[in-house]
Amino acid sequence: MAEKFISERNLKFLLNEVFDTPSLVRHPYYADHSPETLDMVLDTAVRMARDTLKPCFTEMDRNPPVFADGKVHVHPMVRQILKQFGEGGWISAMASTEHGGQQLPMIIVMATHFIFGAANYSGSIYPSACTGAAHLITSFGTPEQIATYVPRLYAGEWQGTMALTEPQAGSSLADITTTAEPTAEGDYRIKGQKIFISASEHDGADNIVNLMLVKIKGAPAGVKGISLFIVPNKRLDGAGNLVPNDVTVTATYHKLGYRGTPINQLSLGDNDDCRGELVGLPHKGLSYMFQMMNEARLHVGIGATAIASAAYYAALEYAKARPQGRRPTDRDPLSPQIPIIEHADVKRMLLFQRSVVEGSLALLLQCSKYADLNLSAPEEEKERAALLLDLLTPVAKTYPAEMGILSTSQGLQCLGGYGYCEEFPLEQHFRDARIHPIHEGTTAIHGLLLLARNVTMKNGRAFTLFLEEVGRVIAATDTDEGLKPYGRQLAEALERLKNVTNHLLGLAMQGSIDLFLADATLYIECFGIIAVAWQWLVQAQVARTALAKGPAAEEANFYQGKMYAFRYFFGYELPKIAGLATRLLNSDGLTVEMKEDFFND
Amino acid sequence: MAEKFISERNLKFLLNEVFDTPSLVRHPYYADHSPETLDMVLDTAVRMARDTLKPCFTEMDRNPPVFADGKVHVHPMVRQILKQFGEGGWISAMASTEHGGQQLPMIIVMATHFIFGAANYSGSIYPSACTGAAHLITSFGTPEQIATYVPRLYAGEWQGTMALTEPQAGSSLADITTTAEPTAEGDYRIKGQKIFISASEHDGADNIVNLMLVKIKGAPAGVKGISLFIVPNKRLDGAGNLVPNDVTVTATYHKLGYRGTPINQLSLGDNDDCRGELVGLPHKGLSYMFQMMNEARLHVGIGATAIASAAYYAALEYAKARPQGRRPTDRDPLSPQIPIIEHADVKRMLLFQRSVVEGSLALLLQCSKYADLNLSAPEEEKERAALLLDLLTPVAKTYPAEMGILSTSQGLQCLGGYGYCEEFPLEQHFRDARIHPIHEGTTAIHGLLLLARNVTMKNGRAFTLFLEEVGRVIAATDTDEGLKPYGRQLAEALERLKNVTNHLLGLAMQGSIDLFLADATLYIECFGIIAVAWQWLVQAQVARTALAKGPAAEEANFYQGKMYAFRYFFGYELPKIAGLATRLLNSDGLTVEMKEDFFND
Repeated sequence: MAEKFISERNLKFLLNEVFDTPSLVRHPYYADHSPETLDMVLDTAVRMARDTLKPCFTEMDRNPPVFADGKVHVHPMVRQILKQFGEGGWISAMASTEHGGQQLPMIIVMATHFIFGAANYSGSIYPSACTGAAHLITSFGTPEQIATYVPRLYAGEWQGTMALTEPQAGSSLADITTTAEPTAEGDYRIKGQKIFISASEHDGADNIVNLMLVKIKGAPAGVKGISLFIVPNKRLDGAGNLVPNDVTVTATYHKLGYRGTPINQLSLGDNDDCRGELVGLPHKGLSYMFQMMNEARLHVGIGATAIASAAYYAALEYAKARPQGRRPTDRDPLSPQIPIIEHADVKRMLLFQRSVVEGSLALLLQCSKYADLNLSAPEEEKERAALLLDLLTPVAKTYPAEMGILSTSQGLQCLGGYGYCEEFPLEQHFRDARIHPIHEGTTAIHGLLLLARNVTMKNGRAFTLFLEEVGRVIAATDTDEGLKPYGRQLAEALERLKNVTNHLLGLAMQGSIDLFLADATLYIECFGIIAVAWQWLVQAQVARTALAKGPAAEEANFYQGKMYAFRYFFGYELPKIAGLATRLLNSDGLTVEMKEDFFND
Repeated sequence: MAEKFISERNLKFLLNEVFDTPSLVRHPYYADHSPETLDMVLDTAVRMARDTLKPCFTEMDRNPPVFADGKVHVHPMVRQILKQFGEGGWISAMASTEHGGQQLPMIIVMATHFIFGAANYSGSIYPSACTGAAHLITSFGTPEQIATYVPRLYAGEWQGTMALTEPQAGSSLADITTTAEPTAEGDYRIKGQKIFISASEHDGADNIVNLMLVKIKGAPAGVKGISLFIVPNKRLDGAGNLVPNDVTVTATYHKLGYRGTPINQLSLGDNDDCRGELVGLPHKGLSYMFQMMNEARLHVGIGATAIASAAYYAALEYAKARPQGRRPTDRDPLSPQIPIIEHADVKRMLLFQRSVVEGSLALLLQCSKYADLNLSAPEEEKERAALLLDLLTPVAKTYPAEMGILSTSQGLQCLGGYGYCEEFPLEQHFRDARIHPIHEGTTAIHGLLLLARNVTMKNGRAFTLFLEEVGRVIAATDTDEGLKPYGRQLAEALERLKNVTNHLLGLAMQGSIDLFLADATLYIECFGIIAVAWQWLVQAQVARTALAKGPAAEEANFYQGKMYAFRYFFGYELPKIAGLATRLLNSDGLTVEMKEDFFND
């Protein structure tokens, strides 16, 4: 088993040198924290990841949840994980002190998610699902709901979930049919089916609190009639005892990966005795849920990045240790074999992974910083940060999710035949990573969200702000001859993105909505590459400055590594937008026009 | 479970309309066959695939080989498969009648491999490994060796294998250390370790015949000292009984996919009693083995294509049946949901898969036709065909292998959450497909082979022939206004490939061998896209001609589908070479220069 799963040096580079987290915490909201305590938080997270999560990474995969007698039995470590994360304040890390939280900046919390996810993605999901559910209740629930549920979720005693999907309503939430009918007692009687709900029943927690999208009887059709409910698997009776709430698990899915977490199918109200509590106003559920979904989307992005990080370090460890072959110019079969890391193609595969991992991580921390600024910055900057966060969320979910498949696959490839075998962790990372383009909205859905909503919202203001942000970084390369050509390359890429965007918006204005959206998936791919290139250019600027100061050997190696990974991204990845842009400017309607019958044979 | 796993209509289109197999079999060598009998062969293969291989596709994955008491126990169907394939003449299909074969053209045999692999890739490997071993013995063995081994391999009673890899020698075959020492009896005493050997021990056959690379004691160092041996797991004693040959299985690998076939680790001569028979001349083993390896590489290509085909049809079936969402212009939540195949992005994902499957299949049949021409054509054409086959073999292995990962992944994506679950076959196809860029030479090795050897061999003659072949197809578009723009697009792509190739060869001539080869993997990717584009243009020409004749509705749908898949490939895939060419022309030495220490953190 590979030892290293993240680079602490790189995390500190990003947090301190790139995103200047120490200056962020000067804001009064973060008065309890200092740069030193933030470092301690990260160090503790690494220790927890190493001691609690990592040891059961393989075990939780090989012993997936078992569904028997209506119960879901998970690995015994799950209870331990929830307890430790609750006691350590990790579940409530971002919550306000008023709600019992730590009031930590999101950029730090995101870094801990990265650390935990790299150690054991499935294991890290249990506490993080509690966070999302609790945050939703604190935002929109009544004081009673907060008092009942939030402390138990933050303690890791009760498990939070997010229950949206139904058999007939996955991507199309407008079609949910689970219903709520008011009772005389002031709550609602719930009836329906929910499927693909992560952690929605297991014996590692005393109760499960499902944050559920439901339609109140008589509600308007479509998304305008969706309400948010708390539907626990067990409810409190008058005496404070937990009693069954008529929530039945009907199946646990057997999955390709992400096996440490049960994903269940729930049947609600088989005996007409499933009760739910309305959260906030009726019919406003989807807008509430979007808060949780947007957080969850960034969590998917960081989870994908984390898995790719673990896969990268496992591949790196192997590449350093495995002797095989000789230099192309060495024809002497008696000369010793070299470690494969010395082969150019292996370095290419490693640089690819590193550029994906560190580029994605930077983008996610950038988004987190926008979230923090939205809370702590002056008013005008707040709006700017909120818009950029909104714009970039689908990108920061989708780029790592899609590239995570390729990155873990290249990690596996570095090990040759061994990569395909269970004795190395690569095959598990490859399986685990594959969930990410699917859950919390598929890649197609995020492409549509980015193009149809985000790029156009507020008259394209968010998109304009993005162009400004990237433009600012490009402008800063003008004074550095070493970076100028890269700045120019990114400027051209940005110009291409503008052209593509204008072309597509032109189609929309002409009413060709089908053509406008047909290649939204390619649009988000193109956008993602450019966004990550932006983050790489920022990192290169910081690394160049550091190198100019003549750091000691070990530090110099780190910054040199950064520069190579940066050059890799601009040399191998950024050029891919040429092909994407060609297609995006084509709009011949190929996929719109093709008839189903043409697929018959 | 999806019913359809290949398109018989498409196979007949390629074999009859595109590659004109009927005219091929007019050659006296194929005198026993007629177009009708060839059709019957295919029909029978489809029936066998459906009745014998497909029913145990999932079962063989869920019940992988078990290693216990020194034996490897496989699914009971394995013995059945070998027996049926032996009795049906499938193992000897391509062999000459002199050796008990059917003397079928390779293009037909390749089509049957496609059919079998799509039904159950693991299951199809047992007979096909027998074919390779038997062919090697008939080509280079003594009459006694042929008489002893070949009939039993062709009957499916004994299992053939290809035993190359050792713990210290995977990609670097120069480093094998398994040794052979001559005995007084005229055979050799073998000692060593072989790892990652498919089907090298199992209870579905009465004996295993390993075609093994070994070094005779005192042989020259490196590849020039490698000999080919037959090393059976059991040998015949004087009385015709099978007795143990001191071949010990020390492990069976637990793999991500391809689980129906055992891949074992062998220890040879633990008790100094492992005997092997030299095949052909001493120290010529690698050149003999290349025959088997080149066949095996095309088999990997077709296996990857086959798995992608099965995944595609499973995704297609789901996409036609699953209602979800509405057209972008339909905002009425009460209107019925549409099948997802009507969404442009789903059609895009399906077209991607179809273009990979049918493009790869065409390239592999093209290679097979070259093999057939090499046997049956006039002398000059023979050499031409042989060179093109040699040039294209790594491409026809690598393109399907690499794209098979992406294609099965897109198939999985079409099913959303269900694609990630074991109740649908996509997750297995995704796991099975991942082996192909690894075995029979990794993608990196094939890139090096293509660039360092094939493109330059005989003063670049093979490469020139390839340019001519593609050029001929492009020229034929001049008279068809509908295809002319596509011809021009491919001509530009070919020009780009020429420029890139000249640029790289220029580096080689200057002695910059490291730079020359650094991006060989990107070179083969670029080459592969262009080779498959060539095959799509050929198909489009045939489809256009057929459409011009006003075929009946069902046939018209098929040809229309072809045209859309063709346009998809030129619209979405071919533009990717722009980014690849940019990088290939760069040669900044990034991956050559980067130091190992820069990866430290």
